[in-house]
Amino acid sequence: MTGQNSAPVLAADIGGTKILTAILSSRGRMLAKDVCSTLADEGVSSVIERLCASIDNLLNGNDFKPSNLAGIGIACAGAIDAARGVITTSPNLPEWSDVPLAGLLAERYGVDTYLVNDASAAALGEHRFGAGQGLRNLVMLTLGTGIGGGIIIDGELYLGASGSAAEMGHMIIDVNGPECPCGSKGCLEVFASGKAVARDAAMRIRQGEKSSLVDMVQGRLEEITAGKVGAAARSGDALAIDVLSRAAYYLGIGLVNLVNIFNPEMIIIGGGMAEQAEFLIEPARQVVTAGAFPISAQAVRIVPAKLGNEAGVYGAAAYAFDRTKRRS
Amino acid sequence: MTGQNSAPVLAADIGGTKILTAILSSRGRMLAKDVCSTLADEGVSSVIERLCASIDNLLNGNDFKPSNLAGIGIACAGAIDAARGVITTSPNLPEWSDVPLAGLLAERYGVDTYLVNDASAAALGEHRFGAGQGLRNLVMLTLGTGIGGGIIIDGELYLGASGSAAEMGHMIIDVNGPECPCGSKGCLEVFASGKAVARDAAMRIRQGEKSSLVDMVQGRLEEITAGKVGAAARSGDALAIDVLSRAAYYLGIGLVNLVNIFNPEMIIIGGGMAEQAEFLIEPARQVVTAGAFPISAQAVRIVPAKLGNEAGVYGAAAYAFDRTKRRS
Repeated sequence: MTGQNSAPVLAADIGGTKILTAILSSRGRMLAKDVCSTLADEGVSSVIERLCASIDNLLNGNDFKPSNLAGIGIACAGAIDAARGVITTSPNLPEWSDVPLAGLLAERYGVDTYLVNDASAAALGEHRFGAGQGLRNLVMLTLGTGIGGGIIIDGELYLGASGSAAEMGHMIIDVNGPECPCGSKGCLEVFASGKAVARDAAMRIRQGEKSSLVDMVQGRLEEITAGKVGAAARSGDALAIDVLSRAAYYLGIGLVNLVNIFNPEMIIIGGGMAEQAEFLIEPARQVVTAGAFPISAQAVRIVPAKLGNEAGVYGAAAYAFDRTKRRS
Repeated sequence: MTGQNSAPVLAADIGGTKILTAILSSRGRMLAKDVCSTLADEGVSSVIERLCASIDNLLNGNDFKPSNLAGIGIACAGAIDAARGVITTSPNLPEWSDVPLAGLLAERYGVDTYLVNDASAAALGEHRFGAGQGLRNLVMLTLGTGIGGGIIIDGELYLGASGSAAEMGHMIIDVNGPECPCGSKGCLEVFASGKAVARDAAMRIRQGEKSSLVDMVQGRLEEITAGKVGAAARSGDALAIDVLSRAAYYLGIGLVNLVNIFNPEMIIIGGGMAEQAEFLIEPARQVVTAGAFPISAQAVRIVPAKLGNEAGVYGAAAYAFDRTKRRS
């Protein structure tokens, strides 16, 4: 069966600031969507209530019943126990610990519900409906506040033994480097995440370097973000350009490792930092050409993501479709 | 079909010093084997002649005809173009450049012939007939003079877009570290290969440290090998123990990365350095426990290889079986 006439799924991506909910056809057409605030600090049950209100809103507003759905797919940052449908821990949802969200939604809506890590979902979304369509294997890096990853092998999402594979942000590339919140030193995330870019820019300004960023944030250096560094770089700010260039170099080192390990057809760069792709991808590609094995460096295309911040919800939908097909 | 009654394959592992040739049943029973010297410096055609003489010897001595074989599988170090059956380049065979070995053997014996990288073959051998039987996914590191790797995903050998995946020895873990022959800095291979261990021991002795290794090699420090460092360590030599401890630490850092990226069920440590497993695996495991994500660190078993230096020939056989089945 090709799934062309199969029922749609409901998918949601629970982010740190907002929850995106959508109904998607099996061919990846977004039939309807809804956005609400996460407000994680209001507590677990409050977030779940808002998620359900958003789902109800979507279903009612578009004349869907839960029984019309092939399944529900939920993407969420953090350690997901996919087999049990439990959010073990999540950086976006600090109070959440072993929350059996899949079971709660399955019971409420009477529909099979599947949980998947958001970065893995983004990779699956880009593979099915975005930059990586039709490829056998690819690696995606999601450069946001932190760095997440997703791996597609032989056309399928690879999740590992306990669903926690693809933590490429915590690949150690400088064993004597700065400490990472994960406990290791010199992880890729310390050098090439949005947080790292913002921190580096603020630190260098505090050390006396000049930058148009100071005016941009009216002197409040803690308000510098990777997006603002990108904007400053586009307006020619030398410090901002240099900070992004350094991040691109380390990103390139991480990509050398991924190219040597996976010999992938494609590496997709997504997440908020992908908005700075013009300063990141070409320099990182040059590091790959110089440092990776030639046969693998030649085989890989390094491209920005296509689905933007909707990759996770597309991927959650694809994941639910895959799982429901496997059951049928 | 389970392949229980299928024809055997002929497999060979072309190493830097010797060529191991064997006939194996589809269940992995080694029915016969032969060993000859590689003598790579005698040139390409001379090595191929010796390989063929070894194959002829095996077949004739055991009353096999080429037509009795399901296929031929050849493992060889280096960049293998599996699709075309060509040895592109090989560190063990310095003069070899784009040698279409599979085609030559297929023509000579009238049997489908498949080439595979030796470290990938070792991973497949350990998966089918050794330490990793029955697992869905595992990673193998072959710690020899250099460091090779192999990846099993969903029970199948993963080779990447152009057959050159799993170069885990060239994962950069110390971007400001010592230069690697591959051109990058601080690759795992620079710290944890047999060559690195021998070099570190010799260097520290030259810098004035005492060691029983000096007497062991009668002052010829260039004759220190990882095996001799292991022997010295077993006899309590403090320098040898410390050199292996340093290699184990860096091996552990590499394993942290592999555990975070693959969340594998198992990591198998093979190659000549596996003889020093007692000094390597437990300390490396402690680095993984301290540095990798807990959920993935808990899921992985880190074990020594079971098939020793026959893993490559077992894997070449399994590869040939897999490929011939796919064609039938």
